[in-house]
Amino acid sequence: MDSETKSPLSHFDESGNAHMVDVGAKGETNRKAYAAGSISMNPEAYRLVKAGTMAKGDVLGVARIAGLMAAKKVDELIPLAHPLLITSSTIDFELMDESYTVNIFATVGMTGKTGVEMEALTAVSISALTIYDMCKAVDKSMKISDIRLLKKTGGKSGIFIRKD
Amino acid sequence: MDSETKSPLSHFDESGNAHMVDVGAKGETNRKAYAAGSISMNPEAYRLVKAGTMAKGDVLGVARIAGLMAAKKVDELIPLAHPLLITSSTIDFELMDESYTVNIFATVGMTGKTGVEMEALTAVSISALTIYDMCKAVDKSMKISDIRLLKKTGGKSGIFIRKD
Amino acid sequence: MDSETKSPLSHFDESGNAHMVDVGAKGETNRKAYAAGSISMNPEAYRLVKAGTMAKGDVLGVARIAGLMAAKKVDELIPLAHPLLITSSTIDFELMDESYTVNIFATVGMTGKTGVEMEALTAVSISALTIYDMCKAVDKSMKISDIRLLKKTGGKSGIFIRKD
Amino acid sequence: MDSETKSPLSHFDESGNAHMVDVGAKGETNRKAYAAGSISMNPEAYRLVKAGTMAKGDVLGVARIAGLMAAKKVDELIPLAHPLLITSSTIDFELMDESYTVNIFATVGMTGKTGVEMEALTAVSISALTIYDMCKAVDKSMKISDIRLLKKTGGKSGIFIRKD
Amino acid sequence: MDSETKSPLSHFDESGNAHMVDVGAKGETNRKAYAAGSISMNPEAYRLVKAGTMAKGDVLGVARIAGLMAAKKVDELIPLAHPLLITSSTIDFELMDESYTVNIFATVGMTGKTGVEMEALTAVSISALTIYDMCKAVDKSMKISDIRLLKKTGGKSGIFIRKD
Amino acid sequence: MDSETKSPLSHFDESGNAHMVDVGAKGETNRKAYAAGSISMNPEAYRLVKAGTMAKGDVLGVARIAGLMAAKKVDELIPLAHPLLITSSTIDFELMDESYTVNIFATVGMTGKTGVEMEALTAVSISALTIYDMCKAVDKSMKISDIRLLKKTGGKSGIFIRKD
Repeated sequence: MDSETKSPLSHFDESGNAHMVDVGAKGETNRKAYAAGSISMNPEAYRLVKAGTMAKGDVLGVARIAGLMAAKKVDELIPLAHPLLITSSTIDFELMDESYTVNIFATVGMTGKTGVEMEALTAVSISALTIYDMCKAVDKSMKISDIRLLKKTGGKSGIFIRKD
Repeated sequence: MDSETKSPLSHFDESGNAHMVDVGAKGETNRKAYAAGSISMNPEAYRLVKAGTMAKGDVLGVARIAGLMAAKKVDELIPLAHPLLITSSTIDFELMDESYTVNIFATVGMTGKTGVEMEALTAVSISALTIYDMCKAVDKSMKISDIRLLKKTGGKSGIFIRKD
Repeated sequence: MDSETKSPLSHFDESGNAHMVDVGAKGETNRKAYAAGSISMNPEAYRLVKAGTMAKGDVLGVARIAGLMAAKKVDELIPLAHPLLITSSTIDFELMDESYTVNIFATVGMTGKTGVEMEALTAVSISALTIYDMCKAVDKSMKISDIRLLKKTGGKSGIFIRKD
Repeated sequence: MDSETKSPLSHFDESGNAHMVDVGAKGETNRKAYAAGSISMNPEAYRLVKAGTMAKGDVLGVARIAGLMAAKKVDELIPLAHPLLITSSTIDFELMDESYTVNIFATVGMTGKTGVEMEALTAVSISALTIYDMCKAVDKSMKISDIRLLKKTGGKSGIFIRKD
Repeated sequence: MDSETKSPLSHFDESGNAHMVDVGAKGETNRKAYAAGSISMNPEAYRLVKAGTMAKGDVLGVARIAGLMAAKKVDELIPLAHPLLITSSTIDFELMDESYTVNIFATVGMTGKTGVEMEALTAVSISALTIYDMCKAVDKSMKISDIRLLKKTGGKSGIFIRKD
Repeated sequence: MDSETKSPLSHFDESGNAHMVDVGAKGETNRKAYAAGSISMNPEAYRLVKAGTMAKGDVLGVARIAGLMAAKKVDELIPLAHPLLITSSTIDFELMDESYTVNIFATVGMTGKTGVEMEALTAVSISALTIYDMCKAVDKSMKISDIRLLKKTGGKSGIFIRKD
């Protein structure tokens, strides 16, 4: 990396030192981010998670609350993330019977100067970790995968839609 | 699920309501948990991450700190996790040139009544999300995968070693 | 509850799942919320609290700080509360000699998209709990009661004034 | 208050200044605290809360999680409270049809040097505030009352059982 | 202090009670605060800190992250500080070979109703404490000094530039 | 720094990467740390701080609470600090009329595996910053200095007493 040129990684200054990027001059736009991920587990754990959605032992209900709360904690967790005031967030689950997998979807909205990608991705991650925590008594081999940004709107860089 | 029998998901009581499992009577043992995960990215982002390990723009150095700090915040993030006092933690990275992927490894140790699996898994997750945050200016399509427990020692359930 | 109709409880979506209500399209207005509550105690505890207001052992001074700080932590405590930036807050106490009771009043102000009722109610609650904590060495039977919203101004729903 | 004698309020030193009481020399004992409180509301809000316990719009499920998480945050909220590691906690609700009231019960356990009364009382308070938050769209006049310690075991002061 | 007149210390009301100052009616302006401080140490610690800037054992890199994160936590740490959304922050270090001292500089920016002095001063303080933490194995006598505001722009009170 | 030898800075491993030092094998001992610092101000601010100690506008009372609470937050603020359970803490102030300076003293105690130096130093720092915050309306040129460890007892390294 040439010390004369600014890194394309905006979280570093010309000297290569980490800083919080200055967004003071950016306008406020409506922004929305959509993220997803999944957690796969063994048949017994999957059966219990699925049973819990109907009445008792509601694993996904607890994981949803954990994800919604985590979306509000991003600036504490990610060192160079800007603090911001999200104005909406949702978490949805999709149960995939054939693969014993729970798909997790998060949407976060805000009007502001920076994107809310990290909020959506963190909501998915903590929601998945909560499912792990609640099911680890019956399956320690669960795997969390495919945490990714699906789409993002608003901001100078415009719309992003993941291709695969 | 039969309402007469206790759920194998220990985070729920007989009525199916969430609670914090009582570990008061458990003995204190030395515990250690090893977790891993990975984040894949495009060649440009990968090149910048790799360059940063040598001098300036140290993405992985920042991600390491984020992961080490997150291991101390698990009881705030995971609703039914017990608060505990970890006594060691490490984060290591492995750069996979052929797949433009960074593998992340976390180890957390403690003497106490409950396991530290969630601490190690959370450290890996937040470390990966920090890499995402710092590289998203050049690649929004990064994907975080394979967050899993590799091994765990200590506690009544003994040693767990992941099979694949 | 008919699954076809939206719940009057706005914190749930059509499927009955918890979410953070979308306030992105709401305008910013000046808002103010007034809440109150009380804690009753035995004569000895009451005497010590009252004595502390004059010079030393200032229970209410500490409880005021605790309440003012708690008003800034609502989004961490209440799962579906929006993060927001309060612009003013006060806590006042009224000493009721005949009933050995301390009345607690909180006012919180903000210009924003959502109300600050939860901030005022939380400030009262944590202030009361702090009084309990500081006096429990002399009275474990204190009781916290009548935590309620007195008044609220601003926002689309307009002025609310509690009737009793 | 005589400046020569120590205040019976142990959170103050001889000069009347607040401090964190030294519990370093106290032994570790098994401790348990039981607290309760209630929130009363109008018939419509009550009906919705009760309906939510069966399937969708689960107000009490969310309030339980909020209370369980708040029990882990007491040392951040109450200025002079000691940090501690709770080993169990539960929240239960009782629906009182005739008075449109929800009774809230919290139990917190720990082996340690200080009591867990504040943890149980805080769990009840934040659980009640969460119910308020989720129902305030249909009733702003809800009232939270009778937050009190029911019982406490362990520690030098022995068993406490509330009399009324 | 005359009880009839308002204290020049705006954090107290007419009765001398602490409150959060009402800034609701203040306009939003671009604000910036510059703070500094220093930590002096023995030659061995200084040598290790300096060596770490080049490759491994990067004390200052960790201290920078700690300072940047602390700037986002001021409203949790300083009781009467307003919550706010900083839009930029930087931390820089200057190594003073002749005095074995590290000078620390922080800049914080925001568009808002209150100043960001406390954010810049807190960033410097926590950054210095982190250096202490990381070097205390070789020098317990380090001293942190001269934490001060250098300059501040924006807001009704206009520009402040420290004179010495 | 020779890559073959371990750094004397124990927060780094052999490769120079930051980690949380493993204290799992260390015994628990009684530990105590004493730290100090000072803040100097102009005569008007000093007069107001001093007046507040008697009745109203109690700057030092608020700063004491801030410091006591900050001692419980060290593991969130200092990246590689171990979480721990302090068992006592005090903050005292000394008013130096001739130099318009407030001296701040903190003592923190614990039985555990690591020292509490950082807790005492952080308590002093946040207490000083709170004084700055509350007096900045009348003096923006205050300076915080001489934050240092006075003494430490307990632990393998034994007693440390600062020499100057």
